[in-house]
Formats: sequence, structure tokens, C-alpha cells
Amino acid sequence: MRKPKGPVSTAPILRVESGIVTTLDDILVTEEPLEIRLGHGPEEDRKEVRLSVTMRTPGNDEELALGFLFTEGIIDLPAEVLRVVTCENVKEEELGNVIRAELHPSLELDPAKWQRNFYTSSSCGVCGKTSIEAVRAQCPKPMAPFGTIDPEVITALPERMREAQTVFKHTGGIHAAALFDRAGKLLILREDVGRHNAVDKVIGALIGSWSSSDRGGMQEPITDHILVVSGRSGFELVQKCLMARIPLMAAVGAPSSLSVELAKEGGLTLIGFLRGARFNVYTGVPQIGKET
Amino acid sequence: MRKPKGPVSTAPILRVESGIVTTLDDILVTEEPLEIRLGHGPEEDRKEVRLSVTMRTPGNDEELALGFLFTEGIIDLPAEVLRVVTCENVKEEELGNVIRAELHPSLELDPAKWQRNFYTSSSCGVCGKTSIEAVRAQCPKPMAPFGTIDPEVITALPERMREAQTVFKHTGGIHAAALFDRAGKLLILREDVGRHNAVDKVIGALIGSWSSSDRGGMQEPITDHILVVSGRSGFELVQKCLMARIPLMAAVGAPSSLSVELAKEGGLTLIGFLRGARFNVYTGVPQIGKET
Repeated sequence: MRKPKGPVSTAPILRVESGIVTTLDDILVTEEPLEIRLGHGPEEDRKEVRLSVTMRTPGNDEELALGFLFTEGIIDLPAEVLRVVTCENVKEEELGNVIRAELHPSLELDPAKWQRNFYTSSSCGVCGKTSIEAVRAQCPKPMAPFGTIDPEVITALPERMREAQTVFKHTGGIHAAALFDRAGKLLILREDVGRHNAVDKVIGALIGSWSSSDRGGMQEPITDHILVVSGRSGFELVQKCLMARIPLMAAVGAPSSLSVELAKEGGLTLIGFLRGARFNVYTGVPQIGKET
Repeated sequence: MRKPKGPVSTAPILRVESGIVTTLDDILVTEEPLEIRLGHGPEEDRKEVRLSVTMRTPGNDEELALGFLFTEGIIDLPAEVLRVVTCENVKEEELGNVIRAELHPSLELDPAKWQRNFYTSSSCGVCGKTSIEAVRAQCPKPMAPFGTIDPEVITALPERMREAQTVFKHTGGIHAAALFDRAGKLLILREDVGRHNAVDKVIGALIGSWSSSDRGGMQEPITDHILVVSGRSGFELVQKCLMARIPLMAAVGAPSSLSVELAKEGGLTLIGFLRGARFNVYTGVPQIGKET
């Protein structure tokens, strides 16, 4: 029996307004742990490591696992994972909350790779790095600049994202990440209690869509996508964009110092405080205007 | 040479408003990694473990380390840590970002304790738990209920917190956590890019203030404090309140399902959507009105 868990739950609450108390049912965003395991090794001697437990909103868990493996540098290409399956052989209360990605049997898992990155912390943000040195270690070479930014395209994105958000409408308490093309067309939207999870889900969906016949198989992707995030921009979100070669990230909230620093190093154009007709460009020194 | 790092930094930006571009210097909240190490063992054979790297806003790092050790259950009482010092014997770029807590030499560090909790993850939220089982393992027995809630006291708290926030005023991009007494008097306020860090700093300051002559030494604390957090309520914030025996947490944002569930189990009164004259009470079924 898989425990059914949707993205929202209900709870009886007291609402207090100007001292007046009413009772009602409120809708909450669901938060549940997801344990990500990795199966690796040759068919005849398959091994398992428990990589991570993240608190996430159930839904698109396979994408989350794939995006996580990719943005953390455990895999370099989506084709390295054969499949992602929900584990059935777990305790009843864990059903639906444990997922296993199967690494291609021909690949060797370098323990240094995941130990370096996955030993540690509950204080997080980026967390999970054994040493400060490791934090930047995996960011690939700088991207080509995004180029011309059309303000009308950019300022339209947050509203377009919000309109597509279903969980936020009901709960008022969830992060969103959305991938748009250059012209501002919405490609992928995901919501999660954790902002890094929302981004990992988007990136998991993106790389999962690459077919092995085109670029999903064996070459490095080239994108000119725009990632919009509902909250603030931190180091770890910039790192994920760099790993996925997304050249522009726009945050509705404020960026941190380190997210600006890393964006500059990696060639990411970073926009913050994207609200109404206004936004700030922190890195990337783009052209502003209509594309010609 | 210690690299000077304040809570805010500046960066040159482009501001785009209705298509008009201006250049200016913007103030950013500083985000830097903090590595927390733990020294343990007898004087003659001192050992070190690297517990965690968290992305934090510099400032009150000793409190952050102490609060982290306490809320993660690595220590049970503040007196178990002799002192917390900034490590000088590190690479230049890490100066100011590595801190070491010295466990009392008479104490044995149970490797199972920190390995269970600190192996893993960058996706976080609570992260850092090797298995889902471990997530709840350390929450102590339920607290006594907070009792009567005075709506006028509660609704005044967010504004009082915001007025005291210095970094937010400049950057618009930081979380805050504040401890109040029952009557609504502000006791401790801390700001950080990570909401769990802000809470760990508050709790570190709280437990650091317990003197060994009263209750800080050897008995379990009893508090009737109120913790206010600027964002949403997640599982890990509720867990930290339970560890510190804080009986009421009020979040300006929405609570998640699991934070409500855990609050109920632990006897925490959980308030959400604390805005203006209004708030929701999710757990704890308090009396509403003036205290008598």
C-alpha cells in the first residue's frame, strides 16, 4: 500500500482576526522527506548508497532525483541513469518517500565524488560539502553571455509564472521555479517547499526531455533558456543554473553576495528584484532592448 | 590577515525600470560558507571532525555553531562546549569562515550521533539525515502548552521584529528570527540568508546566556518564550523550537504540513500567516484573550 500524498493537505485551524476567533479547515502545502538512493555497479554485484534526504513537496520525484544527481555533479549526462523508481521494499510509513536511481552498470561511481559532496549538515542552503574548497569545485567553464535582454519579455515572466502555479493559489506557501524560452514562453514550471527542489525538478524535467538521438545522449547541452525563481537568489541556485548551462536567472527577490560572485565567474546573467516594470541586473552586462 | 566580511556587501548593478537603464551601487546581503568543526577527546589526544558547511551571513558565528550543535542534538547542554573559536590555521580565502567548537575533554563524542545526522545532502531543508527514521529521532518529549494567547501581543510582534532588523532595511533580502517574552518584549534578534541559521543563532544566544549557576549548567531549561520567524514554517524550524523547548512559534508565512504535524506531536503552539490584525493557529488549541 503506497501512502497517498498529494501536494496539498488540510488541517483544522483557528483563525484570529482583531481578536475574533473562527474555526475552519486550512489547506497546507505538503512537506515530506524524500530519500534518494543510488544503485550502482555491475548487474551481478549491484550496490546501493543512500545519497540524500531532502524535505520536499511530493510530485515529480523522479525529476527531482534526476535533477539533483545532475546539478550535484554525480552524473554528467541524463543517459547515465537507466531509470528512477519508487522503492516498494521499505517500511509502510516510508512508502512513496524513498526513490532509487539506477546508474548504468558500465559506470563506476567514484566514492570521492559523492562523499565530498554529501557528507554533512542540516543547516544547509548549499550545505552538504565537506569543505569550503569543494563548494566551487564542480562548476564548469563560463557560459557564453545571454546577450540582449528585452525588458518587456522579462517583466512579464513573474505574472506568467504565478498564473501557472496551482499549489501556491491554495496554500500561499510554496516556492516556484519556471523555465522560459528567450521569447518568454513558459516551458516547465515546478513548485516545492524547498526552492532548490523546485529548481532541481525543473532541471530534471529539462534534461529528461533530451532524447539520446539529439543532444541528450552524449554531448554538452546548449540552452538559451531563462530560469525564474519566486524567492531570493542564493549561491546554490546559481550553481544549479551553471551546471545546467542556463544562461539567465531572474529572481523575484534579492540576490546574496555569493550568488552574484559565482554568477559573474560562471558567465550567468543574474537578475534580481524582478517586480512590476522594474528589475536589477547584477551580472552579465547585457544589451537592454528589443532583439534585432 | 583575517578577511573582513560584514553582513552586507556592495555591487555595481544596472537598474531597468520601464525600459530605462540606470547604473548604481546596490547593497547585498553577504552570503559566505561557514565550516563548523568539533574538537573532541582527552587533552593529550585531541581529535577533530568537520561537522558541517552552511551558507550563512557572517556575524554571531559562535552562536550559530553553538545553536547548531544544540538543535542537532550533538550536545545536550551548552556547558558541554568549552569555547568556540575562529580557526586561524586555514587557507587565506577561508579565514573567518572556519570555526571550531571545543567539546569538554571528559565527554565522548558518539560517532553514531553525528554520522547519523550529518552524512548527506545539498537539497536540504532539514536535509542531512541518512534515513527518514532519523528525522524525528531526537525530538524530546512534548512540552507543556503555552496557554493563553493575547492577540494584541501576538499581532504586534512582526512589526517590532522588522523595526529591529538592520540588514533587511539595506538589502531587502534576509531572513530574521526573534525571541520575545510572553509579554511581547524583544529579547534576541538575528538575521541570516538561511532561515535555519537565523534560528540557530537565536538559540545559540539563548543557551549561551544560561549561566552554569542557574539552569544553564545541568538541568533542562524551561522557557515560555515566543519565536517569530520572517518566512514560512518548515519541519526543521519546528524541530529546532522543540529542541530548545520554545513553546510558541509564529511565522509570518505559511506552515508546511509536516511542520504542523511535528508541532502537534511536540506540544508546540504553531501560528502562521501572522500579518496585520490576523493570524492562524495551527496547533496547540490555546485560550485566546487577555491573560488572567
